[in-house]
Amino acid sequence: MSLLTEELVRLGLDVTLFATGDSQTSGRLLAVCPRPYSEDPSVDPKVAECLHISEIFERAAEFDLIHNHYDFLPLTYSALVDTPVLTTIHGFSSPSIIPVYQKYNARSHYVAISEADKSPELDYIATIHHGIDISQFPFFEAEGQYLLFFGRIHPDKGVHEAIQVAQRVGMKLVIAGIIQDQDYFATQVEPHVDGTTVEYLGSVGPDQRADVLGHALALLHLISFEEPFGLSMVESLACGTPVIAFARGSIPEIVRHGETGYIVEDIQDAVSAVATIQSIDRSACREDVEQRFSHKRMARDYVDTYEKILNLGAGNDRQAISEAV
Amino acid sequence: MSLLTEELVRLGLDVTLFATGDSQTSGRLLAVCPRPYSEDPSVDPKVAECLHISEIFERAAEFDLIHNHYDFLPLTYSALVDTPVLTTIHGFSSPSIIPVYQKYNARSHYVAISEADKSPELDYIATIHHGIDISQFPFFEAEGQYLLFFGRIHPDKGVHEAIQVAQRVGMKLVIAGIIQDQDYFATQVEPHVDGTTVEYLGSVGPDQRADVLGHALALLHLISFEEPFGLSMVESLACGTPVIAFARGSIPEIVRHGETGYIVEDIQDAVSAVATIQSIDRSACREDVEQRFSHKRMARDYVDTYEKILNLGAGNDRQAISEAV
Repeated sequence: MSLLTEELVRLGLDVTLFATGDSQTSGRLLAVCPRPYSEDPSVDPKVAECLHISEIFERAAEFDLIHNHYDFLPLTYSALVDTPVLTTIHGFSSPSIIPVYQKYNARSHYVAISEADKSPELDYIATIHHGIDISQFPFFEAEGQYLLFFGRIHPDKGVHEAIQVAQRVGMKLVIAGIIQDQDYFATQVEPHVDGTTVEYLGSVGPDQRADVLGHALALLHLISFEEPFGLSMVESLACGTPVIAFARGSIPEIVRHGETGYIVEDIQDAVSAVATIQSIDRSACREDVEQRFSHKRMARDYVDTYEKILNLGAGNDRQAISEAV
Repeated sequence: MSLLTEELVRLGLDVTLFATGDSQTSGRLLAVCPRPYSEDPSVDPKVAECLHISEIFERAAEFDLIHNHYDFLPLTYSALVDTPVLTTIHGFSSPSIIPVYQKYNARSHYVAISEADKSPELDYIATIHHGIDISQFPFFEAEGQYLLFFGRIHPDKGVHEAIQVAQRVGMKLVIAGIIQDQDYFATQVEPHVDGTTVEYLGSVGPDQRADVLGHALALLHLISFEEPFGLSMVESLACGTPVIAFARGSIPEIVRHGETGYIVEDIQDAVSAVATIQSIDRSACREDVEQRFSHKRMARDYVDTYEKILNLGAGNDRQAISEAV
């Protein structure tokens, strides 16, 4: 949530970031842990976590609002302080965590990251889509020459489906992303990688990301799970590359069918979509991201939500926000 | 801590037990979880734990004191309420949890379960040894005919050392306890089990426990770790059976050398101790437990500690106690 913090500071809010001590921020940084506990084997993750969270709540009176991005555990401290707490629910890791959100549903405030990710058992004060820093994703006007898979190598993400589509249309597929499921990669992906018709780039860093996205003809996002929010689609669209995707999870909220890509039903449908993808205006893709998925829009939405919460309470224009990550 | 709760109720305190819903108590029971989460695979242990703990602290104003037996996590909520919190530290699972106790050292209250288990980095309001319900452990006046190992089958607990001693004195060894280290059992214990000179009973339930303890000549407790508190020694002594033990952990606080057993240096020393164990008066063992290790003594010590804490605060005689387990 560095993008959000930076933009909130730019908008004039007094923001304190509770994060690890190695975090970069133009807000005020408060850290219990000098660095991520995953980097320090002497630290017990459970200890680091509860000391991090309790510190925020012990200092709650310093803040007008606590914005929690740290899942459910902070909620269990929230009823012990007067400061309102807003939690952005970044996906449910499991249905077993919903009871915590239910317990605090009436007195706390939740933001969904997409309509698709909402639990029917909870109330939400807003749905706020993620935004990206558009300056990191330049626009590529010219149509690309390859199809692109961009994401984790995992059955959920549809790498094999992308390979099938590319083979059927006789077009090159570029695959970029970390291998999360080694067995899937070895059996379903690697046998097709020849460097010519299917190329695997591995993980692509921030420097290369826009080039890989922007030079594609289309992004294939043929997922088979309810993805809470598909950031790679937004990044692709920002570079001008339209998206061909199944109607799962947040996709109908991100892709405008016929305007910024195609929402398809099956592999055959995806093959047909590739044939007509050139009728999608790449600049329309760019413009849609500028309007709907910039980090500035995200920050404005959050400021509106903060104000809504503060008006529910004392009703004045306080502005000290704590972002807990 | 059922024994403590029951005795506190008997002493007239208003006790609320926060535990799983299947708990038996004559106090008031408050449960978030109907039964232990280990019995319900649909429950996320982390979720159950934080909902259990937060419920207590959200209701803190109902209590004059919260007595925590749930390790470090409740401490991180304690600074957010006015009710004083007393934590019995039932051993440190790892040095990595000490930072939490350090953070709350100045404003919270800690009880050690033995002098041996104290961390030099913490302050303690008291050391309170565990107590047992002596009525469950009848006195056996007659000397037993076998040596006894009673505890987990694990290298730390000295099962193999007990076998060595029994073999050298030519006396039968009875082994009772669950197998915690299967490899150790298979290589260091099982080859010696013949049912005659070395007998393994498996885990011994409450019905058999006193019989197995009381009919022994001596309990061999030749541990090789800093045991926070050795309850099996207390149970053995209650039945009249003296203890031969190495001077590790809480042993010097439990065994009175020459009066209720022998504290020895090595195997040879333990062998010599068996030869003279009959000079230990079995009734002295019983009496020492009656005086120092009954659950009534434990409860009185806790009531004294509760009063000490409450007098540090408002200084009146309130008596509503919450026991969190």
